Amino acid sequence: MADPSPKPVPLLKDELDIVIPTIRNLDFLEMWRPFFEQYHLIIVQDGDPSKTIKVPEGFDYELYNRNDINRILGPKASCISFKDSACRCFGYMVSKKKYIYTIDDDCFVAKDPSGKDINALEQHIKNLLCPATPFFFNTLYDPYREGADFVRGYPFSLREGAPTAVSHGLWLNIPDYDAPTQLVKPRERNTRYVDAVLTIPKGTLFPMCGMNLAFDRELIGPAMYFGLMGDGQPIGRYDDMWAGWCVKVICDHLGLGVKTGLPYIWHSKASNPFVNLKKEYKGIFWQEEIIPFFQSATLPKECTSVQKCYIELSKQVKEKLGAVDPYFNKLADAMVTWIEAWDELNNTSEQTSSKQANGAAK
Amino acid sequence: MADPSPKPVPLLKDELDIVIPTIRNLDFLEMWRPFFEQYHLIIVQDGDPSKTIKVPEGFDYELYNRNDINRILGPKASCISFKDSACRCFGYMVSKKKYIYTIDDDCFVAKDPSGKDINALEQHIKNLLCPATPFFFNTLYDPYREGADFVRGYPFSLREGAPTAVSHGLWLNIPDYDAPTQLVKPRERNTRYVDAVLTIPKGTLFPMCGMNLAFDRELIGPAMYFGLMGDGQPIGRYDDMWAGWCVKVICDHLGLGVKTGLPYIWHSKASNPFVNLKKEYKGIFWQEEIIPFFQSATLPKECTSVQKCYIELSKQVKEKLGAVDPYFNKLADAMVTWIEAWDELNNTSEQTSSKQANGAAK
Repeated sequence: MADPSPKPVPLLKDELDIVIPTIRNLDFLEMWRPFFEQYHLIIVQDGDPSKTIKVPEGFDYELYNRNDINRILGPKASCISFKDSACRCFGYMVSKKKYIYTIDDDCFVAKDPSGKDINALEQHIKNLLCPATPFFFNTLYDPYREGADFVRGYPFSLREGAPTAVSHGLWLNIPDYDAPTQLVKPRERNTRYVDAVLTIPKGTLFPMCGMNLAFDRELIGPAMYFGLMGDGQPIGRYDDMWAGWCVKVICDHLGLGVKTGLPYIWHSKASNPFVNLKKEYKGIFWQEEIIPFFQSATLPKECTSVQKCYIELSKQVKEKLGAVDPYFNKLADAMVTWIEAWDELNNTSEQTSSKQANGAAK
Repeated sequence: MADPSPKPVPLLKDELDIVIPTIRNLDFLEMWRPFFEQYHLIIVQDGDPSKTIKVPEGFDYELYNRNDINRILGPKASCISFKDSACRCFGYMVSKKKYIYTIDDDCFVAKDPSGKDINALEQHIKNLLCPATPFFFNTLYDPYREGADFVRGYPFSLREGAPTAVSHGLWLNIPDYDAPTQLVKPRERNTRYVDAVLTIPKGTLFPMCGMNLAFDRELIGPAMYFGLMGDGQPIGRYDDMWAGWCVKVICDHLGLGVKTGLPYIWHSKASNPFVNLKKEYKGIFWQEEIIPFFQSATLPKECTSVQKCYIELSKQVKEKLGAVDPYFNKLADAMVTWIEAWDELNNTSEQTSSKQANGAAK
């Protein structure tokens, strides 16, 4: 006899992991229960590994703390940041699923203008499953959306679009501002719900925020490295930006799409702008050189896989940004280590099963 | 004694002309009265010049029919299309104002989601008067808008933005679809109000629709040529597209911004898809070659004015698109004629005053 009221199976239930970096109990999951409950969570515990992180009852999860990361990666653990949410990328690496959704633990369910709770994950999945349009701009935004299409003048040869690798969601309430903007506009809140998903055109960089982000691991996973930030590093709060610049250059090279816009989450609390300024200040002037570097970066056509692209990019980082600060030499080396670790955990079935046996599980 | 209840003076009242191409009485202006009444209109009458176009009482306008165009431009009138809304660009040429707003006569006042009438012209003016951000994408859209700003990771050196040359508005109700899409989706209506203005990034082309469009004549006017369409030409309904591609390449070269999004107008009536198909079909396959041409077009740094850029582009059109169809040779010649006519009407004060004296006035 079938269960009289089975829960509907959500989209990609067995093909997506939710990655959450945290230093505290995950009470925020209560609000997400209706949307996350049937998915598997990968929790990356940052900071003191002896601390116990409480996860609400009923969630299916695996949790990794620093000791787990060190044990699983050995010396290659040096590429995973400590005391910075950049550590989340370890979760991308140990996942065995095709898709990742990552969210911060200060992000709650937002409401759409009609007052309905937004199922952010479902919207991300829709974004990832339908094509992107990086080669020409559609003025009615996502042409694949219900009630929309390609407008007059859009080349028919481009209407099949490109595979979508990344879905970048936005934030109501506390906007993702840098420390100087936070200091200047402490009371600014984002209240504007923009009902659009759009593809960031080929050749255009954007500031990718890791707060509410989904991607296709198979298409772009190895480029989703969040760099060296936090403890022992001269910079913080540029983890997602770094990943975004690398990812965009590689997506452009490989003909993959990056979308931004819906879904919104509710970002509850502004981080301390003084602390942020200390973390960011080098990034604020370094980005003036980093961005032109990425804007002009080109990859040779031999770079046919994400890994090859990423290794090539690491060389260019060393060559061109090494002069900006020795930090970039270290970062370039860590990019290579990251790829080595990624391939170790993802390419061979023996290593995969040994990792799974050793990984801390629920 | 001051008038006890003077009408408030609208933005740029004496610096903007509204250009309307038409073949019928302009009853649609009644609905726009509160927003257009204090501006000057330039009406370009298409088709039979012996027909009288009625303009509602109280509007300040000048009207040009084909006889006027022929008289004012002489042999150069050949660059102005006949029996196609492309003729509107004659209005851009005879204007003496810094800004142009152009609107089709089947466009009405739309309502925002709160039910309020949208003052489309005011929004266009705001778009034009504040900078654009073509060099890096801002995920919260227009950073200069109330309640928004540049997000974390946006380079500070780019936060002054670039001058805005074009503001491309959108349409509720009947979307701007090509004939094949109209045929396939005859009942599709655009009901989605996307509350955003965004800059089309440098290097990205878009389909510019002339239905609801504003621009800065001083910055980009000479590139706003709507080509050879309609009577005696093998193509129609690509006038605005052609202008948009040329304009975007030149704006990118000169460091100017192009915005799209708000404001919406209410587009009342779909044009006949069978008639449209006949006008468009050559464009539908030609655009497969035209767009790659514009995507790869580069202008030498000696091209420091819009006119120089446009003449250079006309040479490249002849060289690269002439092989697609002899039409492009004719179009390239017309592009040169357009610039000659533009300079004749705009560069010398004698000609300017003789034009004004001869132009048909209210």
